[in-house]
Amino acid sequence: MEDWLEQNLVPLAERLSPCAHCVREANTERDVNLPGARAVIAVFKGFLSVFYPGCFGFGPIRGADCMDRFRSRLRELAHSLHDQCTRAYRYAGRADAEGVSKETVTGLLASLPEIRDVLQQDIRAAYEGDPAARSTMEVVMSYPAIIAITAHRIAHELYLRGVPLIPRIVSEYAHSKTGIDIHPGAKIGPGFFIDHGTGVVIGETCSIGSHVKLYQGVTLGALSFEKDEDGNLIKGIKRHPDVEDNVVIYAGATILGGKTVIGHDSVIGGNVWLIHSVPPHSKVYNRTPKPIIQSRRDAPLD
Amino acid sequence: MEDWLEQNLVPLAERLSPCAHCVREANTERDVNLPGARAVIAVFKGFLSVFYPGCFGFGPIRGADCMDRFRSRLRELAHSLHDQCTRAYRYAGRADAEGVSKETVTGLLASLPEIRDVLQQDIRAAYEGDPAARSTMEVVMSYPAIIAITAHRIAHELYLRGVPLIPRIVSEYAHSKTGIDIHPGAKIGPGFFIDHGTGVVIGETCSIGSHVKLYQGVTLGALSFEKDEDGNLIKGIKRHPDVEDNVVIYAGATILGGKTVIGHDSVIGGNVWLIHSVPPHSKVYNRTPKPIIQSRRDAPLD
Amino acid sequence: MEDWLEQNLVPLAERLSPCAHCVREANTERDVNLPGARAVIAVFKGFLSVFYPGCFGFGPIRGADCMDRFRSRLRELAHSLHDQCTRAYRYAGRADAEGVSKETVTGLLASLPEIRDVLQQDIRAAYEGDPAARSTMEVVMSYPAIIAITAHRIAHELYLRGVPLIPRIVSEYAHSKTGIDIHPGAKIGPGFFIDHGTGVVIGETCSIGSHVKLYQGVTLGALSFEKDEDGNLIKGIKRHPDVEDNVVIYAGATILGGKTVIGHDSVIGGNVWLIHSVPPHSKVYNRTPKPIIQSRRDAPLD
Repeated sequence: MEDWLEQNLVPLAERLSPCAHCVREANTERDVNLPGARAVIAVFKGFLSVFYPGCFGFGPIRGADCMDRFRSRLRELAHSLHDQCTRAYRYAGRADAEGVSKETVTGLLASLPEIRDVLQQDIRAAYEGDPAARSTMEVVMSYPAIIAITAHRIAHELYLRGVPLIPRIVSEYAHSKTGIDIHPGAKIGPGFFIDHGTGVVIGETCSIGSHVKLYQGVTLGALSFEKDEDGNLIKGIKRHPDVEDNVVIYAGATILGGKTVIGHDSVIGGNVWLIHSVPPHSKVYNRTPKPIIQSRRDAPLD
Repeated sequence: MEDWLEQNLVPLAERLSPCAHCVREANTERDVNLPGARAVIAVFKGFLSVFYPGCFGFGPIRGADCMDRFRSRLRELAHSLHDQCTRAYRYAGRADAEGVSKETVTGLLASLPEIRDVLQQDIRAAYEGDPAARSTMEVVMSYPAIIAITAHRIAHELYLRGVPLIPRIVSEYAHSKTGIDIHPGAKIGPGFFIDHGTGVVIGETCSIGSHVKLYQGVTLGALSFEKDEDGNLIKGIKRHPDVEDNVVIYAGATILGGKTVIGHDSVIGGNVWLIHSVPPHSKVYNRTPKPIIQSRRDAPLD
Repeated sequence: MEDWLEQNLVPLAERLSPCAHCVREANTERDVNLPGARAVIAVFKGFLSVFYPGCFGFGPIRGADCMDRFRSRLRELAHSLHDQCTRAYRYAGRADAEGVSKETVTGLLASLPEIRDVLQQDIRAAYEGDPAARSTMEVVMSYPAIIAITAHRIAHELYLRGVPLIPRIVSEYAHSKTGIDIHPGAKIGPGFFIDHGTGVVIGETCSIGSHVKLYQGVTLGALSFEKDEDGNLIKGIKRHPDVEDNVVIYAGATILGGKTVIGHDSVIGGNVWLIHSVPPHSKVYNRTPKPIIQSRRDAPLD
């Protein structure tokens, strides 16, 4: 092995190296200079420990030095996020990246109590919406929806403030952990709950009212993508549905299109495919499917 | 940044702090005093290394000090789990939490050889049920079903003994890793296999016989939730199906309802939607779908 | 607790121990002697940092010692993988395991620049195929498809060289992180993109052309398994579909069977179920479903 490496390592490394002149995706200090995904995720985990102290770590937090550690945690978070946002704005060519970043981070920090209050409503919605939930603490510690919606509420704030990249890294972390893929751009009201969650996709330009409940495998997606004269996708136009207050959408339903509005207090049944609006208080469900059932004639009686 | 923090950190931390008087989800020693999710997961990983020594770590276990390390690992597991279960029972207000916890943990430990034997049958079922499997060792090291079913068999034991929270944390860890969401309450026989697995949901009051095989995206769920006079969900009643021995359920099938029974030796086809019982030896499948196929007239001949 | 352990630990450990004579899955140095899953994953993460330096870690790579660290990283990777492949070949009873392993590892290393070029095309396909993508760097750092396809391209090389176990561990790691389950045996052309991805399954004997795009929940699977005279599954025969160049397959579509060919430039609609071939330039979609829509008569006007 070592002999092969002696002969081949140097030219191989040169062909692969981020210092080489070929176009490629390398995050170098000299050039791109972005935070790494792992650093962004570490900051998000910091937010988790601010919202749910002692829940996701190794044990309960101790009383005596609690406030001191809490303050020091917040200070650390502020500095890390400030550094990361500055790099991200700079990467995107924003003038005064550091100033904008400071505004973003202090704005986010100042809104943390408000975000926490909304998350409390989400937790309550989970507890009240699932017969299997035994306590709100169980919801926090073991429901994937909590990770997904907490990540989203943070990522959405950063998205609104135009931070490049970081919001997507946060939401993809939650996707990876939960199977719930919410684009940071989606607007989601309080009291939001997703049960089970695997396979849920919520697109960038979705708008979801308050007290909406989804099940696993629900897609709120685009119907088709508009292209410009050169055949390139047009980015940034409204292409995902609106879901109004108090809607329930059961597992595997697919709702598509930027003009589709699900009126408030509607119920969308499992596996429904919907590409147009329905009025408030609608119940939408598939005709009872009649699968073919064959029983073996020679089946033993039982 | 630092100047903003100097002015705002103290009042912000006070509004957010777990020591404040507002109602909220904080795991503090003084109050809730539960194990953190990460500590529970560490114990579950300990069980993995007991069942599959050397498989999920950095390398094979060494012969010489093998037994010593094995015993010391088991002792450590016992103490950690005992501490965690004691906290969990105490949180739920159980009298003599420590005594009940000791009973739970020793009961679980004593049943480990039995659980392992059942897991061996699960591994064999995976190997025999998947043409892509090359060895049972490959199954252990790279099949998500093994993580999911091992977590479930541990979580189910804890669930049967009434341990609060911990079973759900274990099963949600497996869900996060595999996309397979099995509620700890589900009763599952030996020789159980789930291929691919992403999106599988198995509800709390399911009962599954022996040698059952599921594919990705199968839901064994509730049809509707019963509410009490005040409109609150009734918790704890039978609301998920029974699946008898030797049943195969293909990808994306949805089977719902507490009165639904899938008779033994049945085969349920892909994407089937079933909300009533079928007798033993049934074959259930959707009418062959006829999607519309348009071929471009001007398509080049090839 | 300690008293119970004193009485029961020794016999319990003996019943569970990997040194015991019972048949079981234990990775011991003396017997199986394979790398652990975690070690294999560590090597794969090394490849990620070679392809995308600075992207998945804590921050950008520094210029000064960049080349030195890059070379040392590659050398480390080479040695670890060599050790792991040697163990895996030896486990499978291959003669001259070490020599074969050296060939495999040096072959893989020599093809890294080529693999990277293909991955660059995948990244470009993702950027061009998703209206929500803002930059190729965003794609690298936050799109699950990048982890999945990078893992696949490495795992496929190892699969082609007959390395046991390791390819499956790599692909299952990606599955766990992304919900995308690609068997290492699948043949996939350049410019491949999977949007969202959760629930995608691509079988062992699939062949996928260039510039193919999939959405979440797509299955390219087997229609049925052939069994030998003794009722055992026959392993290794062609049982998954072929997808030609420039095909788009929308969310939840299921395409099954080893004789099924999706002709180039075709579009397969969401939730389509297809078990036979379609010619090039086909558009395949389900009849517009007409779910039942009930509106409450007493619904407030709004």
